[in-house]
Amino acid sequence: MINIKITGHGIYIPPKVETAKDLAKKIGKTEEWIINSTGVNERRISEIDVDEMAAIACKEAIGNSSPPDLIINASGVPKQTIPDTSVFIQKELGFSGIPSFSVHSTCLSFLTAFNIASTLINSNQYKKILIVSSDRGSIGRNYSQPESSALLGDAAAAIIIEPSLDSGLIDYRMNTYPDGAQFTEVRGGGTFRHPDNPKTVDSDHYFSMSGPKVYKMARKLVYKMINESLLKNSLKVSDINLLVPHQASGTAIKAYSKFGGFTEEKVINIIHKYGNCVSASIPLGLCIAIKDNIIKDGDYIMMIGTGAGLSVASAIIKY
Amino acid sequence: MINIKITGHGIYIPPKVETAKDLAKKIGKTEEWIINSTGVNERRISEIDVDEMAAIACKEAIGNSSPPDLIINASGVPKQTIPDTSVFIQKELGFSGIPSFSVHSTCLSFLTAFNIASTLINSNQYKKILIVSSDRGSIGRNYSQPESSALLGDAAAAIIIEPSLDSGLIDYRMNTYPDGAQFTEVRGGGTFRHPDNPKTVDSDHYFSMSGPKVYKMARKLVYKMINESLLKNSLKVSDINLLVPHQASGTAIKAYSKFGGFTEEKVINIIHKYGNCVSASIPLGLCIAIKDNIIKDGDYIMMIGTGAGLSVASAIIKY
Repeated sequence: MINIKITGHGIYIPPKVETAKDLAKKIGKTEEWIINSTGVNERRISEIDVDEMAAIACKEAIGNSSPPDLIINASGVPKQTIPDTSVFIQKELGFSGIPSFSVHSTCLSFLTAFNIASTLINSNQYKKILIVSSDRGSIGRNYSQPESSALLGDAAAAIIIEPSLDSGLIDYRMNTYPDGAQFTEVRGGGTFRHPDNPKTVDSDHYFSMSGPKVYKMARKLVYKMINESLLKNSLKVSDINLLVPHQASGTAIKAYSKFGGFTEEKVINIIHKYGNCVSASIPLGLCIAIKDNIIKDGDYIMMIGTGAGLSVASAIIKY
Repeated sequence: MINIKITGHGIYIPPKVETAKDLAKKIGKTEEWIINSTGVNERRISEIDVDEMAAIACKEAIGNSSPPDLIINASGVPKQTIPDTSVFIQKELGFSGIPSFSVHSTCLSFLTAFNIASTLINSNQYKKILIVSSDRGSIGRNYSQPESSALLGDAAAAIIIEPSLDSGLIDYRMNTYPDGAQFTEVRGGGTFRHPDNPKTVDSDHYFSMSGPKVYKMARKLVYKMINESLLKNSLKVSDINLLVPHQASGTAIKAYSKFGGFTEEKVINIIHKYGNCVSASIPLGLCIAIKDNIIKDGDYIMMIGTGAGLSVASAIIKY
């Protein structure tokens, strides 16, 4: 076990609600189609940018405690190409001199950062690490792709981790399968489809997602990972007190119960209210569970999900 | 000391050379102005994208050895917004299933990744980590900003690190000062200056750099970091066998000798041939020094630089 504990948590849920009914007109579908095919009844639309969203979540996580000694931005889409978003988050927080960088594995950025931060704490390089995921997927919605447009929502969530004696990260694993690279994309924003490239088209600047292809490829990989992770740690499905999955889609979340054996009350399901918040979904689920006192000291919590890549990652923590 | 060793190294230097004379016409300056103000006599222009560039460097680093068990892309500008570039690099390498993610701290991405990878190796999570930096700054040159246009060049460099008993990372440190956030930017490519935003202008998609402001802010911070890092490890400037600085500008590199006390032959200076290759400058300098047999076992090597943020980072390794 890598000995760390979560000593702070904060979220930013934008006040502006967009219901399935509001969105229906924009994507040429009915309210019922949206709810039935994505599981998203409503989502939040942010009117402030990702760095400001992140800073609100971070301020709540820090509270009246001392500043962190490392800031990791673990988001899917940046504010700018350069500098990386961690700089703007530190700026919004009013700090200066704190080492800051970004980690990017799209919807799994939080899990990647959580493992890195836990390892850095354990090596005594840092004593208090702030991890924040902030995504504003609404900016990148392509209304001509009704499914992904109906899935995406905006949110930010932050946690602080510090050294511990009795809690920590028990298991972390990740696999990336580039066969699925084209299943979830924003092709623009980098060198491939730069605005100067004559091949660049408008749709390159929006999310492009093949939900059914992702789901088909991901399901087997996810269950293989759950089984390997539990087996390695001599745990059973029933030993996991709470499953915090990436909120990929309503179907994906239900599958953890339908095929994975986790009872529904043990699976965090917030997609109906907030949609798929890209990197922020997993930490948002975790922070909401902490706020709602669903998690007790000593509980086993599994965080798991798939991300563009296609990647699969999971972490088991003893809280 | 974090016990790791560099067991593989590879570079990609694009074959196409652009001289100061070639560039002079495009930016409305003379050949002499370019060479005198940036120190860049020529740079390389890549005709393949960042993932292909990276894969060539990675293949050389891997050689006939087994595949890595983790791939970290440590670059300044991505191929696409989503998925992160590590996925495309793994695809080009013909691998599948290897965990992959990206780390972003612009020109310091390699140092950030080096520290993370060393810590992950030391914690026994991975046995063989591939780190690659690949940047194609030429795509983002704004010819109406002659200085940054004349500085940027394209390159990729990769290393492999594995566990070791007698070599390793002795010191690593980083600080980020958001006061300098606007000194080096590519404002587009994210949520801030999305193509849909009416405020977005063409120049948002190019590098914007205030060399003099960066230099003024960075110089003091860099020497403070060198002094702290040496002092902490009971080392003197003369104990460092080789300094591998980020190739920010000709002036910045000469300052390590002029003000920093490092003799010129100990400072890797490749900017005249390759320009500022963003994230790839530090690993390119390191790999070239290894290839040229400048580095001997047991040598103390300091890698150091500044990056957009403004950030400063340094690492001392015992080779």
